[in-house]
Amino acid sequence: MAVGEAETTELLSVAGINLSAVSAGIKTSGRLDVVLIDICDEANIAGAYTQNAFCAAPVTIAKKHSAAIKPRYFLINTGNANAGTGEPGLDAALECCNAVSIQAGAQIQPTQVLPFSTGVIGELLPAKKIITVLPEAFSQLAENNWLDAARGIMTTDTRPKAYSTSLEIDGQTVTITGIAKGAGMIKPNMATMLGYIFTDANIEQGQLQAMLLQALHKSFNRITIDGDTSTNDCCMLVATGKSGVKISSEGKNYQSFKEALIKVFVTLAQGLVKDAEGASKFVTIRVEDGLDSAECLLVAYTIAESPLVKTALFASDPNWGRILAAVGRAGVKNMDINAIEIYLGEVCIVEKGGVCSSYTEAQGQAVMNKDEIRITVKLGRGSAYEEIWTSDLSYDYVKINAEYRT
Amino acid sequence: MAVGEAETTELLSVAGINLSAVSAGIKTSGRLDVVLIDICDEANIAGAYTQNAFCAAPVTIAKKHSAAIKPRYFLINTGNANAGTGEPGLDAALECCNAVSIQAGAQIQPTQVLPFSTGVIGELLPAKKIITVLPEAFSQLAENNWLDAARGIMTTDTRPKAYSTSLEIDGQTVTITGIAKGAGMIKPNMATMLGYIFTDANIEQGQLQAMLLQALHKSFNRITIDGDTSTNDCCMLVATGKSGVKISSEGKNYQSFKEALIKVFVTLAQGLVKDAEGASKFVTIRVEDGLDSAECLLVAYTIAESPLVKTALFASDPNWGRILAAVGRAGVKNMDINAIEIYLGEVCIVEKGGVCSSYTEAQGQAVMNKDEIRITVKLGRGSAYEEIWTSDLSYDYVKINAEYRT
Repeated sequence: MAVGEAETTELLSVAGINLSAVSAGIKTSGRLDVVLIDICDEANIAGAYTQNAFCAAPVTIAKKHSAAIKPRYFLINTGNANAGTGEPGLDAALECCNAVSIQAGAQIQPTQVLPFSTGVIGELLPAKKIITVLPEAFSQLAENNWLDAARGIMTTDTRPKAYSTSLEIDGQTVTITGIAKGAGMIKPNMATMLGYIFTDANIEQGQLQAMLLQALHKSFNRITIDGDTSTNDCCMLVATGKSGVKISSEGKNYQSFKEALIKVFVTLAQGLVKDAEGASKFVTIRVEDGLDSAECLLVAYTIAESPLVKTALFASDPNWGRILAAVGRAGVKNMDINAIEIYLGEVCIVEKGGVCSSYTEAQGQAVMNKDEIRITVKLGRGSAYEEIWTSDLSYDYVKINAEYRT
Repeated sequence: MAVGEAETTELLSVAGINLSAVSAGIKTSGRLDVVLIDICDEANIAGAYTQNAFCAAPVTIAKKHSAAIKPRYFLINTGNANAGTGEPGLDAALECCNAVSIQAGAQIQPTQVLPFSTGVIGELLPAKKIITVLPEAFSQLAENNWLDAARGIMTTDTRPKAYSTSLEIDGQTVTITGIAKGAGMIKPNMATMLGYIFTDANIEQGQLQAMLLQALHKSFNRITIDGDTSTNDCCMLVATGKSGVKISSEGKNYQSFKEALIKVFVTLAQGLVKDAEGASKFVTIRVEDGLDSAECLLVAYTIAESPLVKTALFASDPNWGRILAAVGRAGVKNMDINAIEIYLGEVCIVEKGGVCSSYTEAQGQAVMNKDEIRITVKLGRGSAYEEIWTSDLSYDYVKINAEYRT
């Protein structure tokens, strides 16, 4: 299941980036499961990684390598997360980095390779299978393999997530293209499951890292499918500089570039939610009039992660009492329930501590019958607001996660 | 579904308590849905109520009434929670209290009646239906109606929860009998969905309230089914004093009485989890060697409420990576993952940041095939520990909650 059609664009190549996707047989289905990304040596690279204390071996290595030297290759596999694998897991990831550096030629160090893995936790990475396909992966590197790369990082995703945009700056075209994967164990915290966004703009390293975090906070860090933060979340932003257009916070094109960048991040993040495991609804939860951003997020995530709200959404049941109960238990201090208003779409469902006098079940049902649903909560105590995106909880979510390994 | 057989005992009457359960037609099925409990005037009564800010009308009134005067009647209905109903909800609950006081006779004030409701949120309480059956409820009051009362407070529960014990103190028999209901929207916070525990011991009011809170912290406040704290949680402990046996914290029988009391609370709380909506597993999660109780609970609840852990439990899949990922994202500060050990039953599954060297999938599968499963996490940084109980996440949980109102 997935909600609506995937938002697609023509995928634009980004000068300075070549990619390939091959099949190493990690997934028994024989589909694409290894992606190689070759990054030009002028590029700056920003990264954000999972906050899960049990972070996976490749995350540990990617963080260490990118702190030491400018990366030149991303090596991504699906089918195996190489998480919870201790020392042997680190060794296996390093072995793959070494093999990439050898294949790339003498000038590339193993530390210039960043490994990324996604899939089942707790099984040792089959390094040999990956290394065996590296010659093929190198031979197929090309600038237009975006869709295959997006397919090659999928796990239980039913469709690839990829998005491109471009803008004119000083008579030059600047391009941004990103790919991501999601599906389950999704509540990113500083990063998403796997996301790679590339631009040919020229952006200084510190600035690029700041932009990445700003974009994350408006996109991947505002989604939850099941509240489970993965061990393998990573999001990388690469600026090759090949367009010759310099972007900096002092420049006049900074805002328009940042808006375009955020558009790519948000489209990919929403794409993950729309293709969440078992998803039949795409739900926007907006909390307004809070004292601060933190309490708006607290209320929004409590609603978004309530199994009772999620099953009501699956059933298209306007059971607004469950939303009200979630708001009430969210833990906001000194909340005045008489000041709170709750809306389903445009329909007021709760005011003054109870159901809206004007509410009818038919109004609520009309909103819930849609695939895309907006819930708005007005806390009536300040001017902060936040918006997050989530999915419903369906039979298929249980089915997919009960049968994932079998 | 429910796990195992219900733990049953002969239900012992408690001197000073009379009960009845009748059908008011709030539930269309015609089953018992109104319970009346008549409490002798010598009794002391302790209560604990939901922390949900949107607490239901009957909870607001029960708190207010019990603060004003000694209660003499509990009036409990199922099928309608009278929550999120604003002023009209308060009026409807008060109307029922008034009707009980009139039926009881001139010496009983409306404030001596405590109302309790459970069921669908957001629909106005059908006070008239309840008031109509009060003469029948009064006429059927008897000291041995415990099982009917336990049935009369059920919503989606598949079986009643009731438990009795007795102990000899100074040659006298002291009795404790309790009933409770659960099923869904269960993560009690200072109280459970609905629990009523009675003893004929003589216990001073302040002491009784302290005992209630102590017992709750070892029982109802240590369970979670879906992380959803209800708007209607209430737990009442009544001591009629009719046995003539005085219990106080200075007395020599304090410990043995408290143990017996906690046994009743724990049995009822575990009974709720075993009969949780869609439950096919009863899961004990114990977190040891923490710095303090708070971090043990944080880890325990993160595991217990992870949809991915819960679906793996449903599938009897020893997918320990999901447990590891939940521990890692729980938010414990400065956790050393190399010091952590995780056990499925007696089987060590994680040590030194990865899978145990001795672990085999067959060992894990043997544990997961059981109906009752114990997960132990050793944090390796202190001496605090906590134990909580939870259930799995099944197709039936989704089915029950997607279809609850329809």
